[in-house]
Amino acid sequence: MDKGSSFWNRALRNARSAWDKIATDNDGGVPSISSTPGLNDEDRVEVIKHMQACLDRRGGEVSARKRAAALGHVYMSLNKAGRKRFLTLLTDEFGTDHDKVDQAVVMLSQSQAEDRFAVEQKLREALKAPRVQLLTQFNALPEGVKFLVDMREELIPWAKKDKQLRGLESDLKTLLTNWFDVGFLELRQITWEAPAALLEKLFIYEAVHEIKDWEDLKNRLASDRRCFAFFHPRMPDEPLIFVWVALVNGISDNVQVLLDHNAPQGEPTEADCAIFYSISNAQAGLSAINFGNFLIKRVVDQLSRELPNINTFATLSPIPGFRRWLDRVVTDGSLNILTAENSAAVMALCPGKSAEAAVNEVLSRYEWHKDDKLASALKDPLQKLAAHYLINEKRAGGTAENPVAHFHLNNGAIIAQIDWLADTSERGIKESAGMMINYLYKLKTIDNNHESYRAGEEVIASTRVRSLLKI
Amino acid sequence: MDKGSSFWNRALRNARSAWDKIATDNDGGVPSISSTPGLNDEDRVEVIKHMQACLDRRGGEVSARKRAAALGHVYMSLNKAGRKRFLTLLTDEFGTDHDKVDQAVVMLSQSQAEDRFAVEQKLREALKAPRVQLLTQFNALPEGVKFLVDMREELIPWAKKDKQLRGLESDLKTLLTNWFDVGFLELRQITWEAPAALLEKLFIYEAVHEIKDWEDLKNRLASDRRCFAFFHPRMPDEPLIFVWVALVNGISDNVQVLLDHNAPQGEPTEADCAIFYSISNAQAGLSAINFGNFLIKRVVDQLSRELPNINTFATLSPIPGFRRWLDRVVTDGSLNILTAENSAAVMALCPGKSAEAAVNEVLSRYEWHKDDKLASALKDPLQKLAAHYLINEKRAGGTAENPVAHFHLNNGAIIAQIDWLADTSERGIKESAGMMINYLYKLKTIDNNHESYRAGEEVIASTRVRSLLKI
Amino acid sequence: MDKGSSFWNRALRNARSAWDKIATDNDGGVPSISSTPGLNDEDRVEVIKHMQACLDRRGGEVSARKRAAALGHVYMSLNKAGRKRFLTLLTDEFGTDHDKVDQAVVMLSQSQAEDRFAVEQKLREALKAPRVQLLTQFNALPEGVKFLVDMREELIPWAKKDKQLRGLESDLKTLLTNWFDVGFLELRQITWEAPAALLEKLFIYEAVHEIKDWEDLKNRLASDRRCFAFFHPRMPDEPLIFVWVALVNGISDNVQVLLDHNAPQGEPTEADCAIFYSISNAQAGLSAINFGNFLIKRVVDQLSRELPNINTFATLSPIPGFRRWLDRVVTDGSLNILTAENSAAVMALCPGKSAEAAVNEVLSRYEWHKDDKLASALKDPLQKLAAHYLINEKRAGGTAENPVAHFHLNNGAIIAQIDWLADTSERGIKESAGMMINYLYKLKTIDNNHESYRAGEEVIASTRVRSLLKI
Amino acid sequence: MDKGSSFWNRALRNARSAWDKIATDNDGGVPSISSTPGLNDEDRVEVIKHMQACLDRRGGEVSARKRAAALGHVYMSLNKAGRKRFLTLLTDEFGTDHDKVDQAVVMLSQSQAEDRFAVEQKLREALKAPRVQLLTQFNALPEGVKFLVDMREELIPWAKKDKQLRGLESDLKTLLTNWFDVGFLELRQITWEAPAALLEKLFIYEAVHEIKDWEDLKNRLASDRRCFAFFHPRMPDEPLIFVWVALVNGISDNVQVLLDHNAPQGEPTEADCAIFYSISNAQAGLSAINFGNFLIKRVVDQLSRELPNINTFATLSPIPGFRRWLDRVVTDGSLNILTAENSAAVMALCPGKSAEAAVNEVLSRYEWHKDDKLASALKDPLQKLAAHYLINEKRAGGTAENPVAHFHLNNGAIIAQIDWLADTSERGIKESAGMMINYLYKLKTIDNNHESYRAGEEVIASTRVRSLLKI
Repeated sequence: MDKGSSFWNRALRNARSAWDKIATDNDGGVPSISSTPGLNDEDRVEVIKHMQACLDRRGGEVSARKRAAALGHVYMSLNKAGRKRFLTLLTDEFGTDHDKVDQAVVMLSQSQAEDRFAVEQKLREALKAPRVQLLTQFNALPEGVKFLVDMREELIPWAKKDKQLRGLESDLKTLLTNWFDVGFLELRQITWEAPAALLEKLFIYEAVHEIKDWEDLKNRLASDRRCFAFFHPRMPDEPLIFVWVALVNGISDNVQVLLDHNAPQGEPTEADCAIFYSISNAQAGLSAINFGNFLIKRVVDQLSRELPNINTFATLSPIPGFRRWLDRVVTDGSLNILTAENSAAVMALCPGKSAEAAVNEVLSRYEWHKDDKLASALKDPLQKLAAHYLINEKRAGGTAENPVAHFHLNNGAIIAQIDWLADTSERGIKESAGMMINYLYKLKTIDNNHESYRAGEEVIASTRVRSLLKI
Repeated sequence: MDKGSSFWNRALRNARSAWDKIATDNDGGVPSISSTPGLNDEDRVEVIKHMQACLDRRGGEVSARKRAAALGHVYMSLNKAGRKRFLTLLTDEFGTDHDKVDQAVVMLSQSQAEDRFAVEQKLREALKAPRVQLLTQFNALPEGVKFLVDMREELIPWAKKDKQLRGLESDLKTLLTNWFDVGFLELRQITWEAPAALLEKLFIYEAVHEIKDWEDLKNRLASDRRCFAFFHPRMPDEPLIFVWVALVNGISDNVQVLLDHNAPQGEPTEADCAIFYSISNAQAGLSAINFGNFLIKRVVDQLSRELPNINTFATLSPIPGFRRWLDRVVTDGSLNILTAENSAAVMALCPGKSAEAAVNEVLSRYEWHKDDKLASALKDPLQKLAAHYLINEKRAGGTAENPVAHFHLNNGAIIAQIDWLADTSERGIKESAGMMINYLYKLKTIDNNHESYRAGEEVIASTRVRSLLKI
Repeated sequence: MDKGSSFWNRALRNARSAWDKIATDNDGGVPSISSTPGLNDEDRVEVIKHMQACLDRRGGEVSARKRAAALGHVYMSLNKAGRKRFLTLLTDEFGTDHDKVDQAVVMLSQSQAEDRFAVEQKLREALKAPRVQLLTQFNALPEGVKFLVDMREELIPWAKKDKQLRGLESDLKTLLTNWFDVGFLELRQITWEAPAALLEKLFIYEAVHEIKDWEDLKNRLASDRRCFAFFHPRMPDEPLIFVWVALVNGISDNVQVLLDHNAPQGEPTEADCAIFYSISNAQAGLSAINFGNFLIKRVVDQLSRELPNINTFATLSPIPGFRRWLDRVVTDGSLNILTAENSAAVMALCPGKSAEAAVNEVLSRYEWHKDDKLASALKDPLQKLAAHYLINEKRAGGTAENPVAHFHLNNGAIIAQIDWLADTSERGIKESAGMMINYLYKLKTIDNNHESYRAGEEVIASTRVRSLLKI
Repeated sequence: MDKGSSFWNRALRNARSAWDKIATDNDGGVPSISSTPGLNDEDRVEVIKHMQACLDRRGGEVSARKRAAALGHVYMSLNKAGRKRFLTLLTDEFGTDHDKVDQAVVMLSQSQAEDRFAVEQKLREALKAPRVQLLTQFNALPEGVKFLVDMREELIPWAKKDKQLRGLESDLKTLLTNWFDVGFLELRQITWEAPAALLEKLFIYEAVHEIKDWEDLKNRLASDRRCFAFFHPRMPDEPLIFVWVALVNGISDNVQVLLDHNAPQGEPTEADCAIFYSISNAQAGLSAINFGNFLIKRVVDQLSRELPNINTFATLSPIPGFRRWLDRVVTDGSLNILTAENSAAVMALCPGKSAEAAVNEVLSRYEWHKDDKLASALKDPLQKLAAHYLINEKRAGGTAENPVAHFHLNNGAIIAQIDWLADTSERGIKESAGMMINYLYKLKTIDNNHESYRAGEEVIASTRVRSLLKI
């Protein structure tokens, strides 16, 4: 997790000197804490005392702020083991007061209907873990919100393995969910006029189609391209999520063409399609706090008003997991949708195998996409498999197995088109067998599509895609 | 409550057209609701349906936003009775699900120690009233946060009388407390360069020393004056709380002198005192959500850095409630701290009365402050009474009875000086017998003072003030 | 000239401390100058030395800047007589070098055709008065451009009487004309969101319809009103010229109705007319440097794009000078366009007088506009007189005598309508006999109208107005 | 002139569509002009007509603006030959009216002393070439000022060869000199937070030490580095001139060390030296309009205030022309300052040559700086030669022959140090024999140094440098 940690270090560097200043401003007489990188037992006693003072708001708000800064300072000077110990300590010592909860529960059982509200309120209060209040105090520090976001990024994998830390992670998530409510976010367009310091972050955060260099970045910000991101007022230099759009004529069916530097620039006012070809979450510490859904719709809304000639909004999306899924079902022997006819050519290369197995083996063994004959033999069976995978393969809750499909279907989009050899990059071939999908956003039907999908009804796809399902 | 309602109407006017646009944008097919101003029974059924759809996020985020806008539209078109009915409906129909709470409580009682956290989390979820989620959706609307703040302003007095509404008020307070955490607030200086539209609001919100006209306002923003306010990013044109400061030489002991238009302007870089002579909460809908405490300290901090020659930070504050208190204790006959000697002159005017009663009667019967002799006769007894009132009169919890004293003492300030005939405005005479108080903020002792005050120890006052207590 | 001087003093106050700082920053060793308020003979020697050093750029740019600041400091500390002496000195000592000019002239007479350009360039250089270079240096000082503008304001009346100062005034005008080229000006809309410090200036600069108070100002900035101004980047807080616009339905024919606070606000998107009801030059020091012409057209352009439903752009303008003109021609006896028939009623009141004389006398003797009968008797003759005055009365160069008519006709507008009793304010009655004029700006004909007017052809007016000319 | 032209094309592209819109907005009925790329004779007639109409302001300001846009459009669609023809036409047809000048000259010779001013003013007017007024109109167009700057860039080399065009070039220079007066320029710091579109221009405009890539650029904007530039309000996205500063401890004597990416970042508040290591003019079209002088002093001023611990301001500058000069004087045989002793080692390599000739030959024949022995043998003679070149070699007017030395000496700096092997880049070795110079800016002596230099007195250098002059 290279970038995560490098960013953590950066946040660390920036915030640290500011915090040190706050913490050591001696007017208020808050004793400083020093500690070993691994946070030994002695340190822990000291830190707990400090946390307790912070919670008691001993000395008022200003002292509390100093204490928070001092604790942050300690945290940042710890090594990984020390940080985990620090968080564990926060979990153990400042969790919910079970006795208080139990008392409130007893009161609830004895309460009259008319007092019910007041007692529920008491129970609510009792359930608040003191650590939440402590964490809240960081938001008053410069870069304090980013600090908590990055803290959660580090905490998430620990909490998966360690039951004890799960409560803290959940508290932090609740806190950040409140703060990052979509109403507080600002949509901003990112252009070549944006600060270099911001653009530089896009290199690191881009998760779908790697940005090679500044020339490549500039090309993605040309006059017939757009980039939009959500920002939070307390993290104004950090994009939360961003999406790349190409303004073109006709739905794009090839991402290399879209990203080609030598392609002539189109005239945005003459384009009729907006193609969302990449969407990336930038803050791992905000995972499972969703605003991607809202982002696409806000962008559709803004582009519709700016460029009224655009009548089609669609994505050009990968099918990550397709190859892994194919491998699995071939191993299982659980799939049987291809016919000998449409797969004859590939079966000939792998005698004695089923159609599915043959396809899978060819994919693994050959640089098939560079061989016209092979590619042409694979086209029909692979598209059938992709259609089946996207439409019929479901998770336990009835949602699409493929995460990208789930994201867009849940947003109310439909599967419009399977694009053959649409991404022949190494990653595109390896994960998606070179195919990409256009998900179509039609404003008029978004809501109904969304509800139909949530209700577990059949996935909506264009006639063309749907016809691939027939054997 | 004239201004509240006029502002409500303004917010209404501004937000309404924007919301109407969102609500009636028919792409998403949200049915509109119309209603009678009083919200009759039929309307209520319709509104409940709508609220339910909003909560179910039926149709996704965008539809939810439309539905919130439509509900807001209904709310704003209602009369007072209709709005109360609307809120009652929100309380009754979308409160906590008691059964869910009870089930979670049962689970808790049966849970193992190691599962305790997960069950507590379930209980926490169960205790969330659905109406909170509904209210949250308003923050995504333009002016939506201001809408909720104003809604709470209207709700507070209703909730005082009506137990049913108390839960809703409490939910709203919790929500706003989260959003208005001091870490999210911005301190801004307000100058004569500020937008007229913002300055205009100061006329309405100023709660201590009325601003007479624009000339008066300009005078309060002269080069040796300062005004600071807290703002919230989602209500950027609305001050939350603001404080007026005069930069002077020596502690001011008279507010009329401070506000005199004809006084020569001082040179701020030569001033040695910053006098906080008025602090006003601007948003009644944020009452009991405290940031005044933080405001003064942030301003002290900022002024210290800008003008290093300032070494004294003090207030010039009224004693609201002093006359009412005196009346009460005279009626009770419970007070007996004045001596016949120091009150001889006033006692002569009211034969047969105790010293306290005589003082009180003179205050009521005469324009005493315009009569030098009378004023001089009252000076000593009134200052003694004021010192006693501020230092010795306590509420149940041990805090100072006088609310202004409580605010500053709790902030860590001390009582430095009683200023005689410091506010001879009608209000000053009527409420505070013309006296004012300088509370002193010494950064080095603020924390200790605060703790001592919280611990219920004796109120800290200067030797001079304290000497007035001796009989 | 009260306001001029008060502003001069303000500019003085603001700039002075900054300039003092620059001037006395002793690193560069520029000797300071002190002087008596009247600038005595001794001071003059000192000042001349200083000016010379400034011109020689002795010590480089930074010293030159210091010297300019020091000279400005001296200038500002002088009284009126001293300032005039200062300017005279600048004229006398730093004017064109006549010998250099004469030498260049001799060279010109002897030059070959092919060297002509180079010699002309020499002559051009020789004609440059050194004082221009000296004045230029002020632009590098804070508020330096405003300083020169205000200096010219003071200089203009002196130069009218004093031939000697005329050269300096002309140089200053040339300099400012270069700097205030319309390409450098910014058009800004002024709203109720503008800084109070800026709005305050509108009170002082408004030259047509006095702004009574802040309530009145706010009313003129309501949603169906607009105010636009030109600004210069080096005087960003000072409007140069501004125009007030009302967005209404149908051409306005009464200014009191337009300015009425109690009138309901219109919906700008439904208006079909933009009425320019006042235009004021704010900087007397920029007189005869024209940008008013451009302002109206830029505003027409901007409003057309913002509010496409507006199809009529017209003014509602006074006829300043009309009454004075009438007086004059009655005294002269030079006018004879009214008939006994249409003036019978007024002639009856002033037996033995000509129709013109009778009308003029009634205007002077009675509060005629409050007397329905009188007003109705005056309506026809006065409108005839006004039409004649506007259309037929010319100055030497063939342009309209009335300055407002000249301004709009020269811009390409036409006279569309005479509005009866359109301005019954004291000033409106006194100067324009209560009448106002709608000048109409039709984009399609503006250029032809302008050329026709410049060519001295007949003034273009609507049929209705023109019909008033017929006897 | 690759970059010039690519930028010209960009300005062309940006401005063109805006201008086309203005030009073809048909309301005002300005006829459009079309032309062949080479501007044939027929076109010229058409263009002259158009220019004449533009000058007559036929149809008022708005039409004039349209006509200017249409002319600009024509200009931009021409090829190089066509553009030269266009400019020639402007020169020939719209130059000074010689007859008018001659008449004014006659009037001057006959004028009385008291009318002299008025006649001189007439002469001044007569000398104004109409083309100046025409060029001025471009400033009202978007990017119009940049258009004129780029036009002058193209014109300068033509004017050098073509006497006819010299007048136009001179007019344009006068116009731009007025507009780019230093008082109108804004000093801005450029950081990594600046728009990428602006930073990108630094790559192209940097004239001293090439910026290799974005990493290199970022390194030059690190926390212990500064970049400052002047901007003009009408060309806000175009730097005019910019300077790079390194904040270090002790005077830097090696530019490769300064630019090393791997060097640790210093703490600016602890630095005691600011080293100006590169200054570049960005706009070739503004050549001979000087503001570099002011830039350094403004930056010194700003840094002094921001970082009071910095007590030394010096450059690290190349000696461009040194090698060329050495070649020349060796060929001439005119130099004879080295002794056989201090040059023995190099003379041994080139038997039969003078010391100077030997040094020069070694520089040409060997990669001497990579050979320690050779380098050490050259050190003393080369430093002597450099000192002599910088201090003693003068141009006709008495100023330093080396242009960089002239720039800094004229600014009031002194020669403080010769840095041996301070720039071993290919260019550094080739032009400056690897040496660099520290020019020192001492605020206290700047003015005196400047005057002494202007007066032709001996160049001021440190004792150490001066000692190199002694034989």
